[in-house]
Amino acid sequence: MSIKSLIRTIPDYPKKGIMFRDITTLFEDPYGLSEVIDSFAAEFQDKKIDMIAGIEARGFVIGPAVAVALGIGFVTIRKQGKLPAETVGVEYELEYGTDVIEIHKDAVKPGSRVLIMDDLIATGGTALAAIDLVEKIGAEVAGCAFIIDLPDLGGAQKIRDRGIEEFHLVEFEGD
Amino acid sequence: MSIKSLIRTIPDYPKKGIMFRDITTLFEDPYGLSEVIDSFAAEFQDKKIDMIAGIEARGFVIGPAVAVALGIGFVTIRKQGKLPAETVGVEYELEYGTDVIEIHKDAVKPGSRVLIMDDLIATGGTALAAIDLVEKIGAEVAGCAFIIDLPDLGGAQKIRDRGIEEFHLVEFEGD
Repeated sequence: MSIKSLIRTIPDYPKKGIMFRDITTLFEDPYGLSEVIDSFAAEFQDKKIDMIAGIEARGFVIGPAVAVALGIGFVTIRKQGKLPAETVGVEYELEYGTDVIEIHKDAVKPGSRVLIMDDLIATGGTALAAIDLVEKIGAEVAGCAFIIDLPDLGGAQKIRDRGIEEFHLVEFEGD
Repeated sequence: MSIKSLIRTIPDYPKKGIMFRDITTLFEDPYGLSEVIDSFAAEFQDKKIDMIAGIEARGFVIGPAVAVALGIGFVTIRKQGKLPAETVGVEYELEYGTDVIEIHKDAVKPGSRVLIMDDLIATGGTALAAIDLVEKIGAEVAGCAFIIDLPDLGGAQKIRDRGIEEFHLVEFEGD
């Protein structure tokens, strides 16, 4: 069974014409879940990562288990107003309007190499904001890792254009 | 270093008089993060758990890594409107108003033994709603596990009063 075959596609969600890639079925499968974590850990074990940063909420599902496998810590990047201590924030554009993600100012030691993780890279708005956040608190982005890339939407290319390594486990073209 | 000493307390957050227990510092510490996961895995390894259900968003940080350690799958319990396939929902009371959490109808095989995980048990509103959700889709709640219990708020006792095992790693009294 491949990781890709464990991802369920839901047509016309959240609106007509969108093929929604549902990873809950992948997480529910014991083989799928551990295969995802093992694949990320194998990819990054020799890349001197000091910390993993996961983006709320689906980035929280994969980041900590990979951090445990690598013997490092996990930082949460959250929606505005969710973190209790002093934060820095970055605004980014959505299809309609804008949103803000935040990180604790003291979450990472300056100069640390941080791997950013999320479930999916599409247009890249959230991931690029996360890169800005990590750099704002004085750390270095050592890479960005996703379960799914939708290459037609260009986000992964934008990350590579910034000189940052982009890694994903599966692709869906034509989305 | 103990798990409890890695939890940061932020006074008067989110409002005056509340001592907010901030677990981000625990997750950021490599020892703390792996100690949390190992402790849960050791507690539940012989309890015939089929699946872990984590409550959005901080329950997502701990549940999947414990599921990987136990060789089982992970189910997401999410805020209303976040899950793409057919769901069931349960409404529960907040301090002001109500909220709804949901689970996919097909997330768990009927009769499976599910361990519910979240970061903290306070008054228990969310955890009891999660218990109802898991039972609604035909599964059995094998236990509820948290990093922190605030025993003065009574949630853990309400879970035990339903005949369900409640487990936590640390307590803060007087909250």
